[in-house]
Amino acid sequence: MLKTPAYAAPDGQSPLAPFTIERRAPRAGEVLIDILYCGVCHSDLHQVRAQWGSNGIFPMVPGHEIVGRVAQVGLGVERFKVGDAVGVGCFVDSCRHCAQCKAGEEQYCAEGMTGTYNSRERDGGAPTYGGYSTRITVSQDFVLDIPDALPLDRAAPLLCAGITTYSPLRQFGVRAGHDVAVVGLGGLGHMAVKLAAAMGARVTVLSTSESKREAALELGAHDFEATREPGTLKKLARRFDLIIDTVSAPHDYNAYLGLLKFDGSMVLLGIPDEPLPVAAGALIMQRRKLSGSLIGGIRETQEMLDFCAEHGIAADIELINIDQIETAYERMLKADVRYRFVIDIASLRE
Amino acid sequence: MLKTPAYAAPDGQSPLAPFTIERRAPRAGEVLIDILYCGVCHSDLHQVRAQWGSNGIFPMVPGHEIVGRVAQVGLGVERFKVGDAVGVGCFVDSCRHCAQCKAGEEQYCAEGMTGTYNSRERDGGAPTYGGYSTRITVSQDFVLDIPDALPLDRAAPLLCAGITTYSPLRQFGVRAGHDVAVVGLGGLGHMAVKLAAAMGARVTVLSTSESKREAALELGAHDFEATREPGTLKKLARRFDLIIDTVSAPHDYNAYLGLLKFDGSMVLLGIPDEPLPVAAGALIMQRRKLSGSLIGGIRETQEMLDFCAEHGIAADIELINIDQIETAYERMLKADVRYRFVIDIASLRE
Repeated sequence: MLKTPAYAAPDGQSPLAPFTIERRAPRAGEVLIDILYCGVCHSDLHQVRAQWGSNGIFPMVPGHEIVGRVAQVGLGVERFKVGDAVGVGCFVDSCRHCAQCKAGEEQYCAEGMTGTYNSRERDGGAPTYGGYSTRITVSQDFVLDIPDALPLDRAAPLLCAGITTYSPLRQFGVRAGHDVAVVGLGGLGHMAVKLAAAMGARVTVLSTSESKREAALELGAHDFEATREPGTLKKLARRFDLIIDTVSAPHDYNAYLGLLKFDGSMVLLGIPDEPLPVAAGALIMQRRKLSGSLIGGIRETQEMLDFCAEHGIAADIELINIDQIETAYERMLKADVRYRFVIDIASLRE
Repeated sequence: MLKTPAYAAPDGQSPLAPFTIERRAPRAGEVLIDILYCGVCHSDLHQVRAQWGSNGIFPMVPGHEIVGRVAQVGLGVERFKVGDAVGVGCFVDSCRHCAQCKAGEEQYCAEGMTGTYNSRERDGGAPTYGGYSTRITVSQDFVLDIPDALPLDRAAPLLCAGITTYSPLRQFGVRAGHDVAVVGLGGLGHMAVKLAAAMGARVTVLSTSESKREAALELGAHDFEATREPGTLKKLARRFDLIIDTVSAPHDYNAYLGLLKFDGSMVLLGIPDEPLPVAAGALIMQRRKLSGSLIGGIRETQEMLDFCAEHGIAADIELINIDQIETAYERMLKADVRYRFVIDIASLRE
């Protein structure tokens, strides 16, 4: 076993602190990755604070937006060689035989995917540890190739924020001529704007106030609308083919549903603490759809990375050292980040 | 103008009573229909009691499940001739030039469809009067052909209850191999069971208690499940491709969403008085969809009537005289009808 420096939450109340984990030498079909960068996802904070039910596994090493280089390959690994730039996202295994796994939608695995952290290995049940660490051992089937054109630090958030927004945009066949709205301009929202624009859609950012107008347009949005301005919702009625809703705080679904065209869809990516009211009439009257989407499968994640490389897209990030993580969490809670913190894992090696 | 016996609600509080309306002689492209039967839809009651906002037009002659025979045709009418069995559903006109009208989805007309009653003519703004009357004049473009194989009285509810359930079943491509659940076994629900079974699906009726088991199986359902029995919801988790939810009373959407397979859809046909809570997680975790559907277009309504004729499907009805309408409403409120009241309009001619 390989002693590996990491940062862990000792329990659901205490700040993260240095911690040593063990990574296994790669078995057949596995690769050992030296981690270079790890994005900081809002769900890291939820989990280290034990806010998702009572089933957090502690000590917890978070991090599921991992980019690094292959350090060692196990027997029979042909997809990767030492030195390759690679990525690992939200999951590192799945049952591999259910209908969803066979369809390349491993994140919906009937038996449950194996999360990159705060989960248990399918073989033996050991806890999984994430990317706030210097290396990780993963089956090659769950490792992504990072195209040369992508800057490695800015690629890290693509493994969660990127694929989470790319997948619904693709599922709904977004293309030129479509009107797409993005609600919420955080880690997910900023990627949704870039990706939808690259797919050819006309992109509108919907925000409660005017404060994010400039930022939205800089990201490539064509329009910006402040929904609390009188008359805005009425003006935008039946405007959009697709609304990507990235907001986790309570908000009025029905106000947004009214902005969908006939047959339009709103896709939820955020999970508010409580279920929110939906007016059946808002769905019935223009045959609208409300749906949800969870990250994306391995095949689609690779497609997304290749798409980003082709279109010169990467996340806008703020690079931090590992010892700044608690400050980063605090700032994230105040939405004070453009648009994703990424940990420079070199700071864990010092 | 043709003096025409009818039954009308004088205002939003009083019982229906005899009333005389005028129908016009058919203009070019119009047909005059002698009405034989008119179904009693739950929305008739909502509207005569002025429960849908404050915009009811009184006196109101309800009825939008109309079957009769052509009595007279206007200039240029070639689709119909005197004596033909015909039907009229929930709307008698639309703008005819918006995208939805051009797509044959007139019920979603961007300018609003012209309701068969409680609406206003596009030309001149006169109130429209429905099928609780002995005749009606309608543009041939909004008149349906009733196939010979269908009994006329039992065909009447197809014009609303039939198409309202047929359209979402078709939209979702229901076929053999699909598991379809129907929630609520009233006028809509009983048609959903018959139609889904005829399309080849395995149909399960979901009801709170065991009381409707026999009735559901008689209608052609393959399974019946009482959702309040302990363990039932757990047993049915991820069972269905499509759930048709016909219930207007408040109920737990999330409990039903959990019964959908990966990528499954729940379609709302009923409009509860208040928006009901939806858990984003229930949609996100298996990429489920919650949608709504409103009746169906003229082309699809004709397709549904032909499908019913081909498969020997008609509504199960209780035939009443017009003077029994208030009693029928009272029984409808108690769900005491299998499954649709239909008015024998001969009782209005006596």
